Amino acid sequence: MTIESSLASLSITPVGAISHNDTNSPAGWKDAILASSSAPASFSLLKTLVYKPKTAKTATPVPFVVVAHEDTETSSSALGKKLNLKELRLASEDLLTEFFSLDKNSLSPLALTQNTFSRVTTVVDASIDSDTIYALHASSSSSTVFLKGKDVIAYLRSLETTETKLNVLDFSELASSSAPAPAPVAGGGAVPTKEKEKDAKIEGAVQIAVGVKKEVDFASWYTNVLIKADMLDYYSVSGCYILKPWSYSIWEEIQEWFNRKIKEIGVQNSYFPMFVSAKVLEREKDHIEGFSPEVAWVTRAGNSDLEEPIAIRPTSETAMYPYYSKWIKSHRDLPLKLNQWNSVVRWEFKNPQPFLRTREFLWQEGHTAFLTKAEADAEVLHILDLYRQVYEDLLAVPVIPGVKSDKEKFAGGLYTTTLEGFVPTSGRGIQAATSHCLGQNFSRPEMFDISVEDPNDPTGKGKLYVWQNSWGLSTRAIGVMVMVHGDNQGLVLPPRVASIQAIVVPCGVTARTSDEDRSKINGSCEELATRLRKTGIRAKADLRDGYTPGYKFNDWEQKGVPVRLEIGPNDLAKNQTLTVRRDTGAKNPISLSNVEETVKSLLETVQKDMFNRAKEVYDSRVIPVTDWKDVVPTLDNKCIIVIPWCEVEACEDDIKERSGRASEPTDERAPSAGAKSLAIPFDQSRWPAIEPGVTKCTGCGKDAKRWTMFGRSY
Amino acid sequence: MTIESSLASLSITPVGAISHNDTNSPAGWKDAILASSSAPASFSLLKTLVYKPKTAKTATPVPFVVVAHEDTETSSSALGKKLNLKELRLASEDLLTEFFSLDKNSLSPLALTQNTFSRVTTVVDASIDSDTIYALHASSSSSTVFLKGKDVIAYLRSLETTETKLNVLDFSELASSSAPAPAPVAGGGAVPTKEKEKDAKIEGAVQIAVGVKKEVDFASWYTNVLIKADMLDYYSVSGCYILKPWSYSIWEEIQEWFNRKIKEIGVQNSYFPMFVSAKVLEREKDHIEGFSPEVAWVTRAGNSDLEEPIAIRPTSETAMYPYYSKWIKSHRDLPLKLNQWNSVVRWEFKNPQPFLRTREFLWQEGHTAFLTKAEADAEVLHILDLYRQVYEDLLAVPVIPGVKSDKEKFAGGLYTTTLEGFVPTSGRGIQAATSHCLGQNFSRPEMFDISVEDPNDPTGKGKLYVWQNSWGLSTRAIGVMVMVHGDNQGLVLPPRVASIQAIVVPCGVTARTSDEDRSKINGSCEELATRLRKTGIRAKADLRDGYTPGYKFNDWEQKGVPVRLEIGPNDLAKNQTLTVRRDTGAKNPISLSNVEETVKSLLETVQKDMFNRAKEVYDSRVIPVTDWKDVVPTLDNKCIIVIPWCEVEACEDDIKERSGRASEPTDERAPSAGAKSLAIPFDQSRWPAIEPGVTKCTGCGKDAKRWTMFGRSY
Repeated sequence: MTIESSLASLSITPVGAISHNDTNSPAGWKDAILASSSAPASFSLLKTLVYKPKTAKTATPVPFVVVAHEDTETSSSALGKKLNLKELRLASEDLLTEFFSLDKNSLSPLALTQNTFSRVTTVVDASIDSDTIYALHASSSSSTVFLKGKDVIAYLRSLETTETKLNVLDFSELASSSAPAPAPVAGGGAVPTKEKEKDAKIEGAVQIAVGVKKEVDFASWYTNVLIKADMLDYYSVSGCYILKPWSYSIWEEIQEWFNRKIKEIGVQNSYFPMFVSAKVLEREKDHIEGFSPEVAWVTRAGNSDLEEPIAIRPTSETAMYPYYSKWIKSHRDLPLKLNQWNSVVRWEFKNPQPFLRTREFLWQEGHTAFLTKAEADAEVLHILDLYRQVYEDLLAVPVIPGVKSDKEKFAGGLYTTTLEGFVPTSGRGIQAATSHCLGQNFSRPEMFDISVEDPNDPTGKGKLYVWQNSWGLSTRAIGVMVMVHGDNQGLVLPPRVASIQAIVVPCGVTARTSDEDRSKINGSCEELATRLRKTGIRAKADLRDGYTPGYKFNDWEQKGVPVRLEIGPNDLAKNQTLTVRRDTGAKNPISLSNVEETVKSLLETVQKDMFNRAKEVYDSRVIPVTDWKDVVPTLDNKCIIVIPWCEVEACEDDIKERSGRASEPTDERAPSAGAKSLAIPFDQSRWPAIEPGVTKCTGCGKDAKRWTMFGRSY
Repeated sequence: MTIESSLASLSITPVGAISHNDTNSPAGWKDAILASSSAPASFSLLKTLVYKPKTAKTATPVPFVVVAHEDTETSSSALGKKLNLKELRLASEDLLTEFFSLDKNSLSPLALTQNTFSRVTTVVDASIDSDTIYALHASSSSSTVFLKGKDVIAYLRSLETTETKLNVLDFSELASSSAPAPAPVAGGGAVPTKEKEKDAKIEGAVQIAVGVKKEVDFASWYTNVLIKADMLDYYSVSGCYILKPWSYSIWEEIQEWFNRKIKEIGVQNSYFPMFVSAKVLEREKDHIEGFSPEVAWVTRAGNSDLEEPIAIRPTSETAMYPYYSKWIKSHRDLPLKLNQWNSVVRWEFKNPQPFLRTREFLWQEGHTAFLTKAEADAEVLHILDLYRQVYEDLLAVPVIPGVKSDKEKFAGGLYTTTLEGFVPTSGRGIQAATSHCLGQNFSRPEMFDISVEDPNDPTGKGKLYVWQNSWGLSTRAIGVMVMVHGDNQGLVLPPRVASIQAIVVPCGVTARTSDEDRSKINGSCEELATRLRKTGIRAKADLRDGYTPGYKFNDWEQKGVPVRLEIGPNDLAKNQTLTVRRDTGAKNPISLSNVEETVKSLLETVQKDMFNRAKEVYDSRVIPVTDWKDVVPTLDNKCIIVIPWCEVEACEDDIKERSGRASEPTDERAPSAGAKSLAIPFDQSRWPAIEPGVTKCTGCGKDAKRWTMFGRSY
């Protein structure tokens, strides 16, 4: 009996069914579904787990099948205790094959049949909702069928016999009764699952709204905002995303500004090929060690295998520097300053996240060579400051400039300067941009041999190996901006990068409004937008027919347009327009007489306020800690710690290990629970001076050198 | 005895030695050498060919080894006649292995040893020059050693015995005495090799000059110009090139202009991933058939094999349209107009040529969807005209707009409009840019199913499949510009795209000039450049120390800067500067008082004159032909023919076949000797009206439909 006919016999009609690439993780599965054009607008994943209790070797095991909402925590130890089963473990692939002829990625409640149901114990999550649409695998990890919750239950109930019944379990109760009580930490610890789910749904949210609260389910909020604001779409190749015009235009703004600034200092744009031969890529050992696990290889063209596999650049140091060696023959060829805007590929196997961690991403990479270290040092800082301006002045995102620890610096380089950003909602740091001094590590004779005759050597024979920098800024910046500024209405765009800065919406038009009045109002809106555009403000009038003003408000709020201007009959009578700020919601009528200046200054205010508010939050969350016992509570309180630090790598590893051990359970997509060193801030004056020999390292108690930021991070 | 010790025993020191990727063609070998930073500044390839005369099966063959300059024509039939050897054929791999233990790609005069020399007949090219540096394979196709001509001969002479001597042969004499006399064609036929070589070298050319004449050795001239003008460098992955700032800045000018124009008509920029899953790529059969032999496949990431190979986009129709299907749900979502600037990969196995045919290239690709065919048709032409403006107004390159024949149209599309360019030196047409109407071929339900409810259907149930276009312009445009405008001094840049439009050079400064005067002249140059920059002219003063004005003139001429401004003591005294046009060499003193306006108008004149001259040449080389016997002579005369044509594909194939058969020998890099249909020009009024039923097709004699351009092409 096929699944289709089983369902049909129960009068169950699936909401839909799709096929997609094989998936091997919940995140991958979700991505594959989202990439399909036939998926329902909203759905939840249903997870199916099979456990095996400890049994005598000779006994036939009775597997334990759990069917639960994707977000439900299904602790095997609590389950085992509740059900009085010893050492519940996830079943082996052999057992899965024996019972279901399926691997773990293909499991589904639909794998239970009349034949198998009586041989296992089945437990279903009480939080499965009757009318929610759930995604289930049909018969393999590359096919998905969508069923309402009630139909899933109906299917399972149909398998019941007098001996074998379906068990329903409230996992949230189980979790709260068996888990140790959360530590009492200011700012709130872990939220029990059940409550979290209820809270995450925003009451009365209409179909186009974000749907979940930022503070409660940040990961879902983030992807929802991106999709609803038309920033991005999922793509059929996992880990890759489509940048739609609404986000790409932000990148164009950044490009335009940054290009201007680097051209002022003599940097020229160029384009190097995306392919790198294996031989060249592997020239710098430390460098390639940092990248090789993520390199994508082309091995075939048309129907022919290539003689040697060719890499797609993960970054271009080794692709470019053989030519630097060729082009730089004399000190007159220095400095050489090239930049390129391109995409690079790093085939990460960790969970991808739009903008923050993607397998292909857009960036610029600058590569420069100088005669002296002093010039290189100065440029490293100059570029870092340009990046700071991109974040702070364009994206209104505060960052802290500093230098990376040796462990965290760029593979193969001399030192790495960095901007560290902060995502308040998750309490995590995020590397915003880096500017590296490579020293002479790549120019040395045994590496790329980039040298000139030393112009200051009187013998004229001295060789001088050039000093090099490389620096990069990626589309990750857009993701950080969304995370910092977005709210429960959706995106909030800083005016400087918004492709529409002011949206003009006609209001107060009803069925009784005469055609003449309607066209008068529409005309005034269009005229206002035109006036603003003439002074360089990116304004647009939304004159779409068939949409209410409320719909339009919601639409543009979701997309984060900084200022809305409403014009209705009363406004026209008073020669005014009502301004509504996206960031604060503040409403204010302004005169149409000098509207250009007022709107311009309003946009500047919004830009400044957004930055100031974000900066205040960041500043309040960088907490100096001098006693180890405060480290984990401070991290759990969604803060970054800054500690007097010894700058020894072993201590750094130890801090990460110790701070990770005691932490709250982390989000599935979060790469690290322990605190990494983020940056040694340039500005040490924010904290009490370190006294050599007196101030001790918070990590190991030895002599501290500088205040250093540690935190959980992306 | 190793090669090194053999050479050392003869006191021969190689000029250099490098290793590189395996190579299997002379062009590939040359590319590999040029990509190395250790190659000598100039060199020639030495080719080694092994022939086997016909011998009785039982007899031991005596192979015939020819060592010649890469450009020397070594006709086996002429050789055989001269040496009285029957049916000279290139030796089999077996024979090569037997005698030399080498494959044909690794052959080298150094493969001849005392052991083998006496078993073969060796013939060496008389044109090998004593002091020229030649590249020879050392012992494999991945290693090259550089030897002077005299050392190659010395090595071979060292192998002579009393029985076996080295033969020296003048191949040019051989060719002229045995080849049929070239047909007397106006405009010159094939030039005998020896004469060609002599002519190609420009007398007195200094090291930095182009070195070969455009009219004589166009292929070498082209690559020389690109390298000497700092436009491009070869790269270690064959078929890929580095775009240096001098060429990339031209692309940026084109981007800036084109972006502005397409944004005016509502096109938005976006970015789709470079990867395409096999399943998606293969959805449109006709389309993929056109591309599949050239698709590069990623099959591995890090150390893991991918479950399914993933393609790098050769173009993005199939990557994008599944999302068009998802996004376009209502006629209100139309038109959808997206563009992206990216690189695409087409792994061609034909000989690559910088800008014209490269395995990765930069382009923009626009993809639009409309409710009606009329809108799509209008946009196709609008975009084609923007492309025409890029070529004619920015690059000063004339093009002829028209439509492609069905055979030559875009795979899977409805019709293709095209701009056809022309390279006078080779007499070949070149496809400059294309704008395709895809019709409903991709939107059909069995393809990507991109449809909306027909807003004009009163039942509200009618489905309407969208009308789509795609259009692209690539960096090929830069190559065409170089070929059309460059001359024997190097590049000639049209002012609109030159990153330096005016170079100011201080003159008349000698050893006796006082420091004060020198700094006064330098100061005036800097001041002039600054004044020009303030009015938007891209000007620069070349104040480099230690270079003569002559060196600077040559340097900037080679790089194609449109206008040079010289300032010497006399000029200062007269408050003037001497202008020198790059395109004509015309010199003219102008007053410094209103220099901004004069230079601005001079740049406009140069731009216009460059276009007009090129247009005159193009127009004079599009020759109407109504009699078949004139077809090949006209093509051989480096012209494009335009014929009344029946528009039947079989006739098109026949024209190509017949015109290819009788042609002169073609350049190794030229892809086609037969004439392809290039375009059916929109402007048919240039030629006598076609009378239906009366005017006959020049190809087949059946009824002609429209005047159509045929020609050899890139």
